[in-house]
Amino acid sequence: MPVVHIELWKGRTKEQKTKLIKNVTSAVVSSIGCPPDAVEVIITDVDKDSWGIGGEPASVKFPDK
Amino acid sequence: MPVVHIELWKGRTKEQKTKLIKNVTSAVVSSIGCPPDAVEVIITDVDKDSWGIGGEPASVKFPDK
Amino acid sequence: MPVVHIELWKGRTKEQKTKLIKNVTSAVVSSIGCPPDAVEVIITDVDKDSWGIGGEPASVKFPDK
Amino acid sequence: MPVVHIELWKGRTKEQKTKLIKNVTSAVVSSIGCPPDAVEVIITDVDKDSWGIGGEPASVKFPDK
Amino acid sequence: MPVVHIELWKGRTKEQKTKLIKNVTSAVVSSIGCPPDAVEVIITDVDKDSWGIGGEPASVKFPDK
Amino acid sequence: MPVVHIELWKGRTKEQKTKLIKNVTSAVVSSIGCPPDAVEVIITDVDKDSWGIGGEPASVKFPDK
Repeated sequence: MPVVHIELWKGRTKEQKTKLIKNVTSAVVSSIGCPPDAVEVIITDVDKDSWGIGGEPASVKFPDK
Repeated sequence: MPVVHIELWKGRTKEQKTKLIKNVTSAVVSSIGCPPDAVEVIITDVDKDSWGIGGEPASVKFPDK
Repeated sequence: MPVVHIELWKGRTKEQKTKLIKNVTSAVVSSIGCPPDAVEVIITDVDKDSWGIGGEPASVKFPDK
Repeated sequence: MPVVHIELWKGRTKEQKTKLIKNVTSAVVSSIGCPPDAVEVIITDVDKDSWGIGGEPASVKFPDK
Repeated sequence: MPVVHIELWKGRTKEQKTKLIKNVTSAVVSSIGCPPDAVEVIITDVDKDSWGIGGEPASVKFPDK
Repeated sequence: MPVVHIELWKGRTKEQKTKLIKNVTSAVVSSIGCPPDAVEVIITDVDKDSWGIGGEPASVKFPDK
């Protein structure tokens, strides 16, 4: 039953997302004791131009190197 | 006033979304008795690589045929 | 797999919510052709003081009669 | 600490989003008195085909001129 | 059409929320040029026990004075 | 920067939520390699009457023992 939404900056690989899904699901299961199959994880990639921190886009505040 | 968010796997056609908007709006209106114009429906397409079920990406667990 | 979030003003009865869950689930199933058991619906009751429309709280703009 | 999500129709420029992030952050800071750096703003562009109002897609109800 | 969700720690007064709705709506209107009546703002109060920062609940990390 | 929302059925203790915040934060950090302080976790308790699965409220489908 738990539904987990994760928003992060664009640019994670398919492998990182697979790992994230696996690890967050385990973290939820071990913390609250629900069956793994009940956990849904939905990852949203957000463009750094669309993510503001302290009034500035992350693309300005934290430019890619 | 009701705001409805629907998250689903990528791949629905424009026609399916139009139908979904129409049918979900009717379902809300008939269930709680609000005016249709008050209902907003926002559909989010999610890549199956970004949707985890039971710790695995849906792209692995439910591969497209 | 579809996850549906519905936000509405506080005050719906348990019966209205049950109806809403039933009808919205049917609407999703008939629109996109997924199995009913795959549909999750999460209803959020929002206080009219916390819901703004046109810059004013709904509790002011649409006071309860 | 406040997390602000803004959903709007696709088509805003990078400049409009930068302005939106700046102005909404200021609005939050001046309204509740938190430090600007604590405010995160996440903007989601939604296709008008995926946004329903009154049972119809916004792309039909409000076509682009 | 813009839908704005604001999540903050519990404890804001009704007056602060009214101000927040008013100011955020103005900020959106002046940034993207939409009519004020099209803007919906939904505020969610979150208990500090349910809000984690850096792995700790905000109730521990930022206790009320 | 990652923002994590977790929705679950009402009834978790403060201790379980603290554990959930800690473990999910670690899972995110180890999966994508961001600093722990950048991770925010927001937990939402949902009444089982407001959570539908397969068209029925969870309070009916999975009654508390």
